[in-house]
Amino acid sequence: MIETADSKGAGADLPSHPVVRAAVIGATGYAGCELLTILARHPAATVTCLMWAGKKALAIEDFHPKLRGRFSLLCEPLDVEKVVGSKPDVVFLATPHEGSHQIVPRLLESGMRVVDLSGAFRLKDPAAYAQWYDFDHQAPEALAEAVYGIPEFAAPAIAKARLVANPGCYPTSVILALAPLLKAGWVNVAAGIIADSKSGATGAGRTPSEKLHFPEVNENLRAYSLFRHRHVPEMLQELALSSKDFIFTPHLLPITRGILTTIYLCLSQRRELSEIETLFRNFYAGQPMVRIVPAGTLPEIQGVATTHCADIGFGLDAPTGRLILVSAIDNLGKGAAGQAVQNMNVMFGFPQETGLL
Amino acid sequence: MIETADSKGAGADLPSHPVVRAAVIGATGYAGCELLTILARHPAATVTCLMWAGKKALAIEDFHPKLRGRFSLLCEPLDVEKVVGSKPDVVFLATPHEGSHQIVPRLLESGMRVVDLSGAFRLKDPAAYAQWYDFDHQAPEALAEAVYGIPEFAAPAIAKARLVANPGCYPTSVILALAPLLKAGWVNVAAGIIADSKSGATGAGRTPSEKLHFPEVNENLRAYSLFRHRHVPEMLQELALSSKDFIFTPHLLPITRGILTTIYLCLSQRRELSEIETLFRNFYAGQPMVRIVPAGTLPEIQGVATTHCADIGFGLDAPTGRLILVSAIDNLGKGAAGQAVQNMNVMFGFPQETGLL
Amino acid sequence: MIETADSKGAGADLPSHPVVRAAVIGATGYAGCELLTILARHPAATVTCLMWAGKKALAIEDFHPKLRGRFSLLCEPLDVEKVVGSKPDVVFLATPHEGSHQIVPRLLESGMRVVDLSGAFRLKDPAAYAQWYDFDHQAPEALAEAVYGIPEFAAPAIAKARLVANPGCYPTSVILALAPLLKAGWVNVAAGIIADSKSGATGAGRTPSEKLHFPEVNENLRAYSLFRHRHVPEMLQELALSSKDFIFTPHLLPITRGILTTIYLCLSQRRELSEIETLFRNFYAGQPMVRIVPAGTLPEIQGVATTHCADIGFGLDAPTGRLILVSAIDNLGKGAAGQAVQNMNVMFGFPQETGLL
Amino acid sequence: MIETADSKGAGADLPSHPVVRAAVIGATGYAGCELLTILARHPAATVTCLMWAGKKALAIEDFHPKLRGRFSLLCEPLDVEKVVGSKPDVVFLATPHEGSHQIVPRLLESGMRVVDLSGAFRLKDPAAYAQWYDFDHQAPEALAEAVYGIPEFAAPAIAKARLVANPGCYPTSVILALAPLLKAGWVNVAAGIIADSKSGATGAGRTPSEKLHFPEVNENLRAYSLFRHRHVPEMLQELALSSKDFIFTPHLLPITRGILTTIYLCLSQRRELSEIETLFRNFYAGQPMVRIVPAGTLPEIQGVATTHCADIGFGLDAPTGRLILVSAIDNLGKGAAGQAVQNMNVMFGFPQETGLL
Repeated sequence: MIETADSKGAGADLPSHPVVRAAVIGATGYAGCELLTILARHPAATVTCLMWAGKKALAIEDFHPKLRGRFSLLCEPLDVEKVVGSKPDVVFLATPHEGSHQIVPRLLESGMRVVDLSGAFRLKDPAAYAQWYDFDHQAPEALAEAVYGIPEFAAPAIAKARLVANPGCYPTSVILALAPLLKAGWVNVAAGIIADSKSGATGAGRTPSEKLHFPEVNENLRAYSLFRHRHVPEMLQELALSSKDFIFTPHLLPITRGILTTIYLCLSQRRELSEIETLFRNFYAGQPMVRIVPAGTLPEIQGVATTHCADIGFGLDAPTGRLILVSAIDNLGKGAAGQAVQNMNVMFGFPQETGLL
Repeated sequence: MIETADSKGAGADLPSHPVVRAAVIGATGYAGCELLTILARHPAATVTCLMWAGKKALAIEDFHPKLRGRFSLLCEPLDVEKVVGSKPDVVFLATPHEGSHQIVPRLLESGMRVVDLSGAFRLKDPAAYAQWYDFDHQAPEALAEAVYGIPEFAAPAIAKARLVANPGCYPTSVILALAPLLKAGWVNVAAGIIADSKSGATGAGRTPSEKLHFPEVNENLRAYSLFRHRHVPEMLQELALSSKDFIFTPHLLPITRGILTTIYLCLSQRRELSEIETLFRNFYAGQPMVRIVPAGTLPEIQGVATTHCADIGFGLDAPTGRLILVSAIDNLGKGAAGQAVQNMNVMFGFPQETGLL
Repeated sequence: MIETADSKGAGADLPSHPVVRAAVIGATGYAGCELLTILARHPAATVTCLMWAGKKALAIEDFHPKLRGRFSLLCEPLDVEKVVGSKPDVVFLATPHEGSHQIVPRLLESGMRVVDLSGAFRLKDPAAYAQWYDFDHQAPEALAEAVYGIPEFAAPAIAKARLVANPGCYPTSVILALAPLLKAGWVNVAAGIIADSKSGATGAGRTPSEKLHFPEVNENLRAYSLFRHRHVPEMLQELALSSKDFIFTPHLLPITRGILTTIYLCLSQRRELSEIETLFRNFYAGQPMVRIVPAGTLPEIQGVATTHCADIGFGLDAPTGRLILVSAIDNLGKGAAGQAVQNMNVMFGFPQETGLL
Repeated sequence: MIETADSKGAGADLPSHPVVRAAVIGATGYAGCELLTILARHPAATVTCLMWAGKKALAIEDFHPKLRGRFSLLCEPLDVEKVVGSKPDVVFLATPHEGSHQIVPRLLESGMRVVDLSGAFRLKDPAAYAQWYDFDHQAPEALAEAVYGIPEFAAPAIAKARLVANPGCYPTSVILALAPLLKAGWVNVAAGIIADSKSGATGAGRTPSEKLHFPEVNENLRAYSLFRHRHVPEMLQELALSSKDFIFTPHLLPITRGILTTIYLCLSQRRELSEIETLFRNFYAGQPMVRIVPAGTLPEIQGVATTHCADIGFGLDAPTGRLILVSAIDNLGKGAAGQAVQNMNVMFGFPQETGLL
């Protein structure tokens, strides 16, 4: 039993029987595994079908030994009609970007609500897809109605949304840390904002490649995609920043799960560290999945790995007004599956943290 | 929602309000953290007090950042009267061996039930403690009534026990794998049984030492305590084996959590692999926390890490009758805190898997 | 300057200019990288050509950033005539098994000596290749003349050999540890010998696969190929053991380099630990690349990783005569490239350790 | 044999017998191990004595199993007279800061030259030691004559120096990357320079602590010492920067060896990437231990781990003039022992790379 004030009464809001029927497409990847781990434990959800990109129906434990014994459902070859036939209330898509964008219109037509973990519905501008995702977006109506799903910022819209674009892992770690300051107007944006991110290897998915071969990642660290990572437009869009004022650099860490982002910025006027902390605490008051770390400590990956929380902390050089934000999430938790279920919770009226603590 | 037959009706057996009040002594170590992680999520337990070996009352997140926001209780200096005053139904001891053995009698006198994660009450012979644990056992009565807590084998006794000796991590991985065959009399014991175990570093606890300094463990593997590990007498006792027929060799793996044990033995007569599998499936039928891996696959640490399950699999060289058993557990899960809560579930009449899936 | 007695006079034995011209085929894999690292530093070798399985000539640092600036030679597409044209004295083959077996006859015909790091010339019985390596061996004459290259055992034959079959990594760790006892007749072979090996991931090569994808190896351990690993026949052959008396189980460790093998056997008569140690010290006296660890300590992977040595140690349960051998090598060092260069040193009359300390 | 132009003629410059006698004080730590590994292989050095902070004389392999068989010298309790008595030409100090500062004057008086790997002689201002190193500097004369030992910048002074202050690991990675641009005046310093560094755990030394306990580092990343790391004054001093224009943030990586530093700055006027690359190539022309990575690739830790090189690369956003520098070193190599031996090579007239490739 969790003893936080927020969750104490949670039981009262939950129905005595599961009410949300959920399908998971793309169940064989890492985000799919995490989704199933959460849903298996969620008190108000049941899974109606599991699908993957292969040609055979296989037990889910053939892909995820950890889930052995948890699901009697087979993981079947992708078949949208079968998904519809399983009568889900919500469909989670943990599918490739282009694939998601092809499936979503058919699911919406069939009356299902969708949480898409791919990038296919995150950018408002359809034309951006050719540049950043290498395909022409064919579903502009769905794109127009999609809600960018950070529940801390957009709960009312998510509650009504048919289609939620679940944010990228890096953007989640950056946006949650920067939004309070930017919205308050406390940042000297023209001085430049730098986000130096470090991510575990599951963020790159489960497809084998030389870059992700064990001996190439282990005992190593590398920066990649300087100035041109696919997650940049998503961050600029959601933070209303210009590309000339913002730099994002991802690095590949030799760990399985977790992102730590170190952000450098200049305050627009002199502040004390306590003011910064207060701003963040007020901004995220009542939000169960974001935790502000006390001044004097800093978030670290171990504090969030295997959780669905985001931790945020700060260091301030008061004389110069230079502020360092450090944010930590689990890329599969708050950075993917955890946030997806948090969105589902909002969509179906449950407390946001249901099944996530 | 988990869709196994076993758990489907679980909700019906649970009371609508928590009924088990649990104290955790030794909350600042790795097993303590795992206990709190489970209890925070357990639908029928509430935590009454947290204690540690230090001199100040501190927030639990100062030790375990992952638990930030989960407990408003402070972690206080050890004070048995305060534990009693918090009126727990059960006390979990994640304390050093000698410390546990000093505290337990006072807790039992005060009417509390105890699950002790140390080795202080595992060996039936009080005289063994001087040899294996370097202290003289002063609580022979408590020792005499203690139940060795593998719920798959001793549920009726655990259900009535005042004091459960929670098994060691290595013994759990060895005993679960060997018991079915030994009880069936299928093993040529005189030919020798060898258990080659490999454990993650949390099994050695949280006290810093050169042997556990990051660069000494990372990119390394070492065997240790050949022929003389403290867990050997526990295995011999529970499996009714003689030391001349059984060898146990532990190795330290450069990972955080998990044990893989590879066991070598000779069958007493010719068997097919399918017979072995059937024996195990029958033996563990209805046991939610032990999973038999299908012939042709083998357990691995990733299949159990962060779970509270044990996975068991086999390889047979039918012509020679040589059998290899492979068992995998999370040393903090089924090897410590998970089994402790499984014991609590049995003690208080809940389904064994409650809060553990 | 190394201060061992053996190496003190080494300088005197070395010519003032390089005399061995070496070609490396298969330079882009992990063993190839290690070969080049050693050869770049070797005082009596020069590299004449580098080849790989691809279609373009590329800088070697494109494959191995660590070698940046060390070689001006490009790594070229495999062309045996070009190899011959570069006039090497010796050709190192770090190529796939079947490929090696196709190339070797042409190299021998051209008058070059060969050290083959693949398994293509390790098994004396040509018929074994269909069973263990999935191809029919077409070069029985070359196979017949090949010398199995453990320099500690076969230096005279290696010195004259045209073709050296460089041993497998696991066999090296097992054979070096068992040979002294078996040759002395101190082992009760019929009681069974068990070799439980644990290897780092570079032992599996550089080709990406799901099994070697970073998140599948990291924080994991798994046993594989129970009773049927391809290295078993090599061990049986070299140790003159029967398959019914010997079990070998490999495990994949979440590290880059290193093998630790734990071997269990019964002595044929009672011995003291000091006798065992003396047997080994005498057996390996004057052998610079094998180190006997003093009684009371044990080899570990960190003691050999990035070296070309093998470390061997023991634990004895005198009452029962059960002996545990622990051996450690770097799978890329003494288990591959280091041993290959050690063989080259023997072939060309240099002290065995030249360039390897 | 290394085939670079620089090293080709190296043999000619070396004497036929070792001429430099070196003592190593603080041989039991990680930098000490690396120093001994290099010196054992160095063609022109011999080790005269090994000392440590303990009370017994022990074999060096008791501390560093990797060095088994390399040194017959025992590692003795620190005794400066004994060091002097062993008649070294140079003494390497891998000792704590305050300890180094106490020993150095006596060594200099005795006529020995010193390479100090601690921070005790890096800061020109004696008063800075109370602030940054928690002790009052008692050896101002030695401090005044100490040369800050980056051989690429200060070879003439190092060649004549009695005392070389071997740079810190982080400063080495930062200074080598920034110096060419700053010296050329190409940086808009007032816009701020940010160095985000990530280091392996050996950088923190061998003393056990909770922060460096294996499970606390593994699968984790944390930032620490925001705005106040002890290496900051060293960087400011050597780069002639003001603290208001420079931020340095270190992070602890879950790896053993290596530092990657990502540096963000604004160019003072528009440049092409090729101009940047040319500036660096010219700046480091003829310097064997610094490697400029071609445009389009980036340095990574694996490219330098276990080497003594520094790799430097770049990414440029030409429209905004924002430049990212990435530098990689092994913290024990170019960041400590490798640079120390490079300094020794300069001091005694050998090619800089002698024993380091």
